[in-house]
Amino acid sequence: MKYTYYFGPTKTEGDGEQSLLLGGKGANLAEMSNLGLPVPPGFTITTEACNYFMKHSAFPSDLISQINAKIESLEKQMGRKFGSIDNPLLVSVRSGSKISMPGMMETVLNVGLTESTVKGLAKISGNDQYAYDSYRRLIMMYADVVIEKSNNISVDNNLGIRSQLENFMNLYKKKINCKSDAQLSGNDLKIICQEFKTIIYEKFNAHFPDDPYIQLQSAIEAVFKSWNGDRAIQYRNIENIPHNMGTAVNIQSMVFGNLCNNSATGVAFTRNPSTGENVLYGEWLEKAQGEDVVAGIRTPNPINEDSRSNNSNKSLTLEQKYPDIYNQLCSIKEKLEMHYKDMQDIEFTIENKNLWMLQTRKGKRNGVSSIKIAIDMNKEKMINKKEMLNRISSNHLNEIMLPNIDPIEEENEPIITKGLPAGPGGACGKIVFSADAAQNYHENGQSVILVRKETSPEDIHGMFAANGILTSRGGMTSHAALVARGWGKCCIVGCSDLLIDYNKKTMVVGNNKFREGDTITLNGTLGAVYGNKISLVENKIHDNDQFNQIMQLSDQYKKLGIRANADTEKDAKIARTMGARGIGLCRTEHMFFSPNRILSMRKMILATTVKQRTEALNELLPHQEKDFYGILKAMTNYPVTIRLLDPPLHEFLPTKIEQIESLAKNIGISIQDIKNIINDLHETNPMLGHRGCRLGITYPEITKMQATAIFNATKQLIKDGFSPKPEIMIPLIGTDREFIHQRDIIDSVYQKGNYDFQYMVGTMIEIPRACLVAEDIAEHADFFSFGTNDLTQTIFGYSRDDIGGFIREYISKSILENDPFASIDVRGVGKLIERAVKRGIEKNSDLKIGICGEHGGDPKSIHFFNKINLDYVSCSPFRVPIARLASAHSNL
Amino acid sequence: MKYTYYFGPTKTEGDGEQSLLLGGKGANLAEMSNLGLPVPPGFTITTEACNYFMKHSAFPSDLISQINAKIESLEKQMGRKFGSIDNPLLVSVRSGSKISMPGMMETVLNVGLTESTVKGLAKISGNDQYAYDSYRRLIMMYADVVIEKSNNISVDNNLGIRSQLENFMNLYKKKINCKSDAQLSGNDLKIICQEFKTIIYEKFNAHFPDDPYIQLQSAIEAVFKSWNGDRAIQYRNIENIPHNMGTAVNIQSMVFGNLCNNSATGVAFTRNPSTGENVLYGEWLEKAQGEDVVAGIRTPNPINEDSRSNNSNKSLTLEQKYPDIYNQLCSIKEKLEMHYKDMQDIEFTIENKNLWMLQTRKGKRNGVSSIKIAIDMNKEKMINKKEMLNRISSNHLNEIMLPNIDPIEEENEPIITKGLPAGPGGACGKIVFSADAAQNYHENGQSVILVRKETSPEDIHGMFAANGILTSRGGMTSHAALVARGWGKCCIVGCSDLLIDYNKKTMVVGNNKFREGDTITLNGTLGAVYGNKISLVENKIHDNDQFNQIMQLSDQYKKLGIRANADTEKDAKIARTMGARGIGLCRTEHMFFSPNRILSMRKMILATTVKQRTEALNELLPHQEKDFYGILKAMTNYPVTIRLLDPPLHEFLPTKIEQIESLAKNIGISIQDIKNIINDLHETNPMLGHRGCRLGITYPEITKMQATAIFNATKQLIKDGFSPKPEIMIPLIGTDREFIHQRDIIDSVYQKGNYDFQYMVGTMIEIPRACLVAEDIAEHADFFSFGTNDLTQTIFGYSRDDIGGFIREYISKSILENDPFASIDVRGVGKLIERAVKRGIEKNSDLKIGICGEHGGDPKSIHFFNKINLDYVSCSPFRVPIARLASAHSNL
Repeated sequence: MKYTYYFGPTKTEGDGEQSLLLGGKGANLAEMSNLGLPVPPGFTITTEACNYFMKHSAFPSDLISQINAKIESLEKQMGRKFGSIDNPLLVSVRSGSKISMPGMMETVLNVGLTESTVKGLAKISGNDQYAYDSYRRLIMMYADVVIEKSNNISVDNNLGIRSQLENFMNLYKKKINCKSDAQLSGNDLKIICQEFKTIIYEKFNAHFPDDPYIQLQSAIEAVFKSWNGDRAIQYRNIENIPHNMGTAVNIQSMVFGNLCNNSATGVAFTRNPSTGENVLYGEWLEKAQGEDVVAGIRTPNPINEDSRSNNSNKSLTLEQKYPDIYNQLCSIKEKLEMHYKDMQDIEFTIENKNLWMLQTRKGKRNGVSSIKIAIDMNKEKMINKKEMLNRISSNHLNEIMLPNIDPIEEENEPIITKGLPAGPGGACGKIVFSADAAQNYHENGQSVILVRKETSPEDIHGMFAANGILTSRGGMTSHAALVARGWGKCCIVGCSDLLIDYNKKTMVVGNNKFREGDTITLNGTLGAVYGNKISLVENKIHDNDQFNQIMQLSDQYKKLGIRANADTEKDAKIARTMGARGIGLCRTEHMFFSPNRILSMRKMILATTVKQRTEALNELLPHQEKDFYGILKAMTNYPVTIRLLDPPLHEFLPTKIEQIESLAKNIGISIQDIKNIINDLHETNPMLGHRGCRLGITYPEITKMQATAIFNATKQLIKDGFSPKPEIMIPLIGTDREFIHQRDIIDSVYQKGNYDFQYMVGTMIEIPRACLVAEDIAEHADFFSFGTNDLTQTIFGYSRDDIGGFIREYISKSILENDPFASIDVRGVGKLIERAVKRGIEKNSDLKIGICGEHGGDPKSIHFFNKINLDYVSCSPFRVPIARLASAHSNL
Repeated sequence: MKYTYYFGPTKTEGDGEQSLLLGGKGANLAEMSNLGLPVPPGFTITTEACNYFMKHSAFPSDLISQINAKIESLEKQMGRKFGSIDNPLLVSVRSGSKISMPGMMETVLNVGLTESTVKGLAKISGNDQYAYDSYRRLIMMYADVVIEKSNNISVDNNLGIRSQLENFMNLYKKKINCKSDAQLSGNDLKIICQEFKTIIYEKFNAHFPDDPYIQLQSAIEAVFKSWNGDRAIQYRNIENIPHNMGTAVNIQSMVFGNLCNNSATGVAFTRNPSTGENVLYGEWLEKAQGEDVVAGIRTPNPINEDSRSNNSNKSLTLEQKYPDIYNQLCSIKEKLEMHYKDMQDIEFTIENKNLWMLQTRKGKRNGVSSIKIAIDMNKEKMINKKEMLNRISSNHLNEIMLPNIDPIEEENEPIITKGLPAGPGGACGKIVFSADAAQNYHENGQSVILVRKETSPEDIHGMFAANGILTSRGGMTSHAALVARGWGKCCIVGCSDLLIDYNKKTMVVGNNKFREGDTITLNGTLGAVYGNKISLVENKIHDNDQFNQIMQLSDQYKKLGIRANADTEKDAKIARTMGARGIGLCRTEHMFFSPNRILSMRKMILATTVKQRTEALNELLPHQEKDFYGILKAMTNYPVTIRLLDPPLHEFLPTKIEQIESLAKNIGISIQDIKNIINDLHETNPMLGHRGCRLGITYPEITKMQATAIFNATKQLIKDGFSPKPEIMIPLIGTDREFIHQRDIIDSVYQKGNYDFQYMVGTMIEIPRACLVAEDIAEHADFFSFGTNDLTQTIFGYSRDDIGGFIREYISKSILENDPFASIDVRGVGKLIERAVKRGIEKNSDLKIGICGEHGGDPKSIHFFNKINLDYVSCSPFRVPIARLASAHSNL
């Protein structure tokens, strides 16, 4: 079995396509070699070797001999010898898996230096200081990576060996009154190396090996092991990277940026990763090795004028110091971009005025930059329009749509806790613990963050007033998350570390205590909470040509229709400007909460006769008519799916004694009677209780009233010159008989009224049984709309309000790949949806099918919905652009 | 289209097989005619004519001519003429659908009498009194059935026309000082008839028709209409009879039991319907028409000595008065039984010493009688063993197993309210409103009925102490229902008419108020509540040879294995005596509620570190070991499926402040801390919350402890000479990864311990997703056990605790055919179960599959489980005999 692949000026064995086998770095080193770029020769040990090692805790039997053969090739190529006293070859040992995991895995440089070869290096370079500086770096990295981390040995608790060695070095510098590493003499460094070895022996009872082959072999092992280090596993969990890929190891001839004053090292992006501008953007350090740039010990210089920031105003640029090398770098940039058709992130070293390329990879960039680069590269004819659209992710779009917190300020703030990123964007304000307080602060012109254990419909006014919402409980589809997403409001939920005390008006996290009025900042895109003020950066999306260009292109490529979920005229208007072509879910329950309606609603609930109930409903009728008039008007020419009353009635009744007293006085029922009814309506599992069409069936008067309101509004709009397209949606259907019962009521309201227009009656498919008998229901329904929130709840048996107790543990233990409320569970929920779609269409080929759950705004879920040929998805107005883009992606 | 079928001494057109077309009565009249029995000639109008009428509100176009032709045939046969003044033919008009609905539908007798024909009748009979008595009966029935009921006209509110006419007749008798109807002269009756007509005209502004053909046609219409009368619809709902069958109408020549002193009428069963004894059993009345026997106006006489009851001790029997006719009846009994191979319910009339058979049908009988008759008829070689078993229904078996309330006393008690029959049998006792009170009364030797809005695990001791349980809320699988069924205890749930006030200790239903200590009686088989004491009749099942015979035969024919759900050693023993061959569900959570364990359980829940948790679990370990030792021992040689901890942890925490205070003191945690934890563990929808394997995954220590206890107990039992067969069941699995995670823990407990025996690890399939990914789970599981309660909850989206709000309305409106918690929903839930079984077996052919939900004891559901080839069903110990019988039925 071939475990090692050579790369270098000649006879490179791999190429850029082999990233699964060689890792991203290895494949790119091979590819750069193939392109004729100056790459120090080396070889890559495959991920297969790593996986073998993971399984057997040992190298494959012939790996050592393959390595030794490759080392011999390097020796020939470089004219140096591994372990030679006269002219030693040194190598770097770096990890590199298919998917980049920056900073997560290990590197050992300068492998091959021993007591004897270091002297050889000093001799041939004529530079003691350089040789011993290289040596002490090797010892330090080796102690950290190979001895400590890979053996899971921890010394002196949290203080790692690297810090201890650094501490010693700092003390030494202080003692001899030396300010920078560069001032240390060869002799100083020699002493430091010696002392390093002593400290290591004391701590670990192990010697730093004086044999280059042992160094090499142990370093390779350590890199293999780092694949299963805690940090790496966590990173993969967060980034959804499979755990079974393994890492490759790159062994490369060392070139030295710290060899002499004509040496340097640097990193650069081929375009600006923040703005997308088409200029080389990077940093460099004189007389240094690569790790110095990354580690931030010394402040690097900008490589050119375009890379200058406030901190680096006066520094010398690479362009100024080595214009030839800079030009060489610029032409390499062009070569790489033309080859890879994408912006690259490169590492280089200058050894005695020679430029060496150490790495190239796809450069990470933010949303603004991604979008600009994609559009520019299309203009530059590097990529076509489809590819351009593919380069822009929904996260990029999200970033440019929402106000965000200033990323520079954010970098310097410690995160105090993390939760689930329920509503993206940023928010900063004073903490309050009640909806009323939020409203008060807001009315006094102050920004507020509403902090609650969880939110309920009674908190709506405070949620609306707040700039951001933070809860200690609930998941991605908890009440808070749903409302916030609907409004495009920043929100973090399920911050289970938060201890909230409503009485004391405090919130405690770890050792930090916050009181009402203290300022915090939320990054809703990441789910991060900060204990101080961070500035916000606003985005004005409609002035953004790039945004509009992307949206137009998306609409060209997409197949799915995009609607929005909107309950008010205002939201319907926003939805329309966001590009929604219809409303997929207009909930009617929120309409009853305003003070002038809730009383009628409560009368209706407390009614003991059909007559009383009808009277109360008659009071609500004109309100409903007005609601529907507004929404249908805002969406004129496009369909509006109105869902009949859905939540259990107890949600509309008061809970506090004062409210009950006032209600009793208002409608002339005894307090005890109201309490009894509230008690009777209490449910153990309201999610599975007396709601949805079950209300319409037990109280047909409600359905009648709502149908009347919809038809009256439609009639009036037509008279007023509009084109309303009402679609009435019956919620929570589980049997065809339920549907027939409710449809009969609606149709008979139409027949008995003086109406003359088209309308549809369909159902929300949101419980498993509806999927299982979809063919029965389809026979009578004009449309299906999948309510994937409730479907996910019932198919998994997860209450979205209670999932907080285990969902994070489920994801961290890889029991679930992701939160099924965020992305549709294709294997379970998806299977049942597919069945329902298939059988529904078989029975009724005219059936219109959409989805109106939260998944309608999730790109991964949209791919699935596109694949199973739904007619449309419906999502929050602020997710409409995302949905347009994602559905184009799905169809490309 | 042929709508009328003749029957009589010659040329009978139908036969006994045509009950769908001719109704049961019509088919049997044809069959009796074919057998040569003395049946007054007549004809049957088909159910197709009825259905046509229902649809078009009109007779089929040629029905009238067909009827007229048949009337002509009757006229020829009887030598009388319809409407003739000299020798009038009179007919009866009776309903009769395929499935008998006793007392639910309408009859009109003596049709054909008019002002003129009544005179003819008087003349040819030489009996004025008889003629006008017949006439006044016609007028009365016609007014009631044809004018009032069929037109839905209600006069004077609740007082129907029949009562008003009876009132008038009583007043008239009083006025002339006459005590019985028989004393009324022909003239009196003539006056009464006249006055009847006047009253009818006053009330309805309609004349009683003086045309025999109008009488006939209107009577037929009225019978058709009575199919959709309120009472008939209700009856069909209760008895699960389809509403689209329609009724046939039988037009039959009248013979008169009231013609003269040598006339009589009677009803009889061919065997005793209470005891099953093989003797004719019936009643007769001299000089009367059939309705007089049924209506109970006069007290009938026994037909023979075997039919004598306490009330009829001295009466003259038919055998004594007319020995010849009695003998003729006895030989007809033999003929009918030999022909129908079943016990018959017959009606006869004696007209001037001539016996006429008016009806035969399968006789209704109670459980004891059903069983005896089936066994006897097998002995008499009338039916074979299979047929014998088929004749015995699970309800019959149930009846002989449980103590019941005395049916005779019950007849005379008014039902005060009805609920869902959650636990069969009868119970009588004093009302209490709390579990503690139930225990107190019980300890003082008093019988009690525990009345609660709903019950919770905290009520268990009171439920155990109570003789019966009555709740105003909850459905067939509410807590109360489950517990009661498990114990074989009488229980009625969901009595929504009950208004219970815990403070005042009262229960109000309608105008009746009951206080603590008042006595009530429950019929748990019917769901009926009585406001007084009714005696109980005990059954001792194990001394019952017939019972044992049926069980043996059942076991011969059945294919399904039968296990029981049992959580304690005691229940396991009962289950074994009931014939269970294994335990399909041993819940472990009830084990933690006893006082010496709940504290450790609570410590475990309140633990903040793994160490504390493990310590608390170690306290529970010996208890669990003992539990499992006892259960596995009681079921030695048979498998015991032990389910790991399932309910959400908050169920184990106290709710009352005193309990919280005492707990705080006991374990040294602050009251506030406990309150906070209780608060944190609170769930909006606990059914869909942090429970089942989600507990075992977030707290792996719990799974470890339970597996250890099971393995330790098994090891000890083997040492003690027993053959335990433990099967560990992981609850609430929704993904294969959950199963693997928990199985790994269990297997590693086994591997690390010093064990050496066989065990199985499987899962409860109780959420839809488990069915949808059954193939994934089957790869790792040894068995599946369907938890159909939770499956029904999640597939329908019905919380079994909250279903009370709409389930009865759903059933009465035919939206559901029956309560899906009582009988499995084959179309929805069943479809998903079938899928899971199929895919599970495809992936793992060794997979053992059973079901342990409440449906395991329901015959209808058992048929389904038998059909889809499950290995076993598991049910409450007291349902085991039912399950054995039902699974034999399924396989016959």
